[in-house]
Amino acid sequence: MFKFELEETDGRARTGTITTPHGIIETPIFMPVGTVGSVKTISPLELNDMGAQIILGNTYHLHLRPGDEVVAKFGGLAKFNGWHRPTLTDSGGFQVFSLAEMNKITDDGVHFRSHLDGSKLFLNPESSIAIQQNIGADIMMAFDECVSYPSEKKYVADAMERTYRWAVRSREAKTNDRQALFGIIQGGVHKDLREISAKQITSIDFDGFAIGGLSVGEEIPLMYEVTSHTTEYMPVDKPRYLMGVGTPQDLLNCISYGVDMFDCVMPTRNARNALLFTSSGKVHIKNKEYQLSDEPVDRECDCYTCRNFSRGYLRHLYKSGELLGMRLNSIHNLHFYLSLVKRARNAIKLGVYNKFMKETLEKMSQGGQ
Amino acid sequence: MFKFELEETDGRARTGTITTPHGIIETPIFMPVGTVGSVKTISPLELNDMGAQIILGNTYHLHLRPGDEVVAKFGGLAKFNGWHRPTLTDSGGFQVFSLAEMNKITDDGVHFRSHLDGSKLFLNPESSIAIQQNIGADIMMAFDECVSYPSEKKYVADAMERTYRWAVRSREAKTNDRQALFGIIQGGVHKDLREISAKQITSIDFDGFAIGGLSVGEEIPLMYEVTSHTTEYMPVDKPRYLMGVGTPQDLLNCISYGVDMFDCVMPTRNARNALLFTSSGKVHIKNKEYQLSDEPVDRECDCYTCRNFSRGYLRHLYKSGELLGMRLNSIHNLHFYLSLVKRARNAIKLGVYNKFMKETLEKMSQGGQ
Repeated sequence: MFKFELEETDGRARTGTITTPHGIIETPIFMPVGTVGSVKTISPLELNDMGAQIILGNTYHLHLRPGDEVVAKFGGLAKFNGWHRPTLTDSGGFQVFSLAEMNKITDDGVHFRSHLDGSKLFLNPESSIAIQQNIGADIMMAFDECVSYPSEKKYVADAMERTYRWAVRSREAKTNDRQALFGIIQGGVHKDLREISAKQITSIDFDGFAIGGLSVGEEIPLMYEVTSHTTEYMPVDKPRYLMGVGTPQDLLNCISYGVDMFDCVMPTRNARNALLFTSSGKVHIKNKEYQLSDEPVDRECDCYTCRNFSRGYLRHLYKSGELLGMRLNSIHNLHFYLSLVKRARNAIKLGVYNKFMKETLEKMSQGGQ
Repeated sequence: MFKFELEETDGRARTGTITTPHGIIETPIFMPVGTVGSVKTISPLELNDMGAQIILGNTYHLHLRPGDEVVAKFGGLAKFNGWHRPTLTDSGGFQVFSLAEMNKITDDGVHFRSHLDGSKLFLNPESSIAIQQNIGADIMMAFDECVSYPSEKKYVADAMERTYRWAVRSREAKTNDRQALFGIIQGGVHKDLREISAKQITSIDFDGFAIGGLSVGEEIPLMYEVTSHTTEYMPVDKPRYLMGVGTPQDLLNCISYGVDMFDCVMPTRNARNALLFTSSGKVHIKNKEYQLSDEPVDRECDCYTCRNFSRGYLRHLYKSGELLGMRLNSIHNLHFYLSLVKRARNAIKLGVYNKFMKETLEKMSQGGQ
């Protein structure tokens, strides 16, 4: 059911194909985030048009609302939300540690309170996998402990060991053969811990491996260093997923370290706040300077927004609080991310990835970062 | 540039064609409301797909934001908002009387304060037409006084006379030959005043005529009675526009009185509040009963929403506060209104309008009203 085929490599950058029950994913890929099932403001038709191949749903959110058993009754996420192509769910761990009011972490699992109504909840590897099996995504994630930054190294090491024990239990809890399961490497910003964690996690029979616990506040060069170091200890024949990363610059750099998959709320969240990514840097569309601009957001972009609307109109929609503005901005930003990874794939296939990366980064740095 | 051709009649119901610089409109038609230029949450592409032929912009809102001169610099509303087909602007009168803090009405015009920042503003026939010429819609509306309900008959009569004097000035103020101008008949719920106003307003050389000042709180049967009475005094060879009306039932009934054009925020506003119109009555999509429903909103509807999403998913989106829910609901409601008027046109052409109306109303009354 699940298969990863490595295709071309260029330096450490690589292209590949992931086959899932809901279709094929070409890597490197960016996965738009559809927290409660929908990518905010965007329809499945638009996701398709912009070249999305897989979207992510959040286990924690879907468990709370509408409830994973409700999603199961509809035949799984892809039937429920009308996106009939591949999906991935996180383990719920990150949200438990970042959103919920946490009560207690034990080796058994995590006691916490819902951010919606304060009700008491418990999540552990077994329940996370059970919930993810109800949601029915093509790719599930092992339940892990994501440590905040900065933390004492001793604590990071303890959490890393717990993540390993939870990874073993996550793998054992999986009963559905139609769903793949990825393990998550932790270890904070410590290279030695990352190496240990990578060896621990990749010793388990997972379908792919993720780097978790980055982009949580550490400096970007440090994030790059740790990512680059960690991928060295990840098998070449399995997909590599860097969780929650990042900016266009982050994607390009981390692709050069051999990362295959990314997800981040940045393109959609920034879009709703009127911050647009372009080939020549960021555009704050709310700025007065765009009031009379009949230019598209990005002359090099062929998304629906850039083909049909001016910076002046997008600014007006933002200033007027019109939801269509959030939507047109989201279309543009997601399209920008998805064409960036598509261009990266092509550059790798042509063996010119480093040149492509350097030129693209340089051009982006002309505008604001 | 502007032309109305009456085509078929069936009783008092009628079909026709309006030709404008931005294209043709088949009547009877419903006009989605795009207050600040955009129909809330909906793209021009979607408007096109659902059979919209003309959309309405609000002069008062566009004057305040982004400013009518800004719209003019972009080449008019249809260029600014990416909807390249016909548009209509109201006169700003209704918003001044309903939204703004009013200071004083004199024969010269209306002093009021902006609902956005409290700044002092003044609107009269000359400035309303000047603003509407900047906005550049295909159809402009004369500046009128819209009286609240209930009001003393003496006041309604005074406002009606003022509306006539303002109509004369509106017509004189118009200098752009590419834009049509409609006069507005007032007179409250008083048949004798409506008759007088109709005769006054239709004596002026307007391109079409509207019935204003209804659907402001009066009982529905009274609204029907006044509309039916007023259309008797309106010329057959000019379009007839009933402003701000209404429910699907209102549209069907008023088409039978010979009305050609309608606008209302109801389909979009109700959509955002999870109230959906269907062929068998209203559906409150937030209701618990739809949690596990894999039925579409309306089995007889072929809109994007009904073709791809279940009641259960739409309920989930509403409960989760997802903007996509507002959008999918708006697509459905607008599609419902636009197919209703399309089916009305067909029924008139076939000479079966009364039968069609009766059956459609009966079916809608099976559900909630």
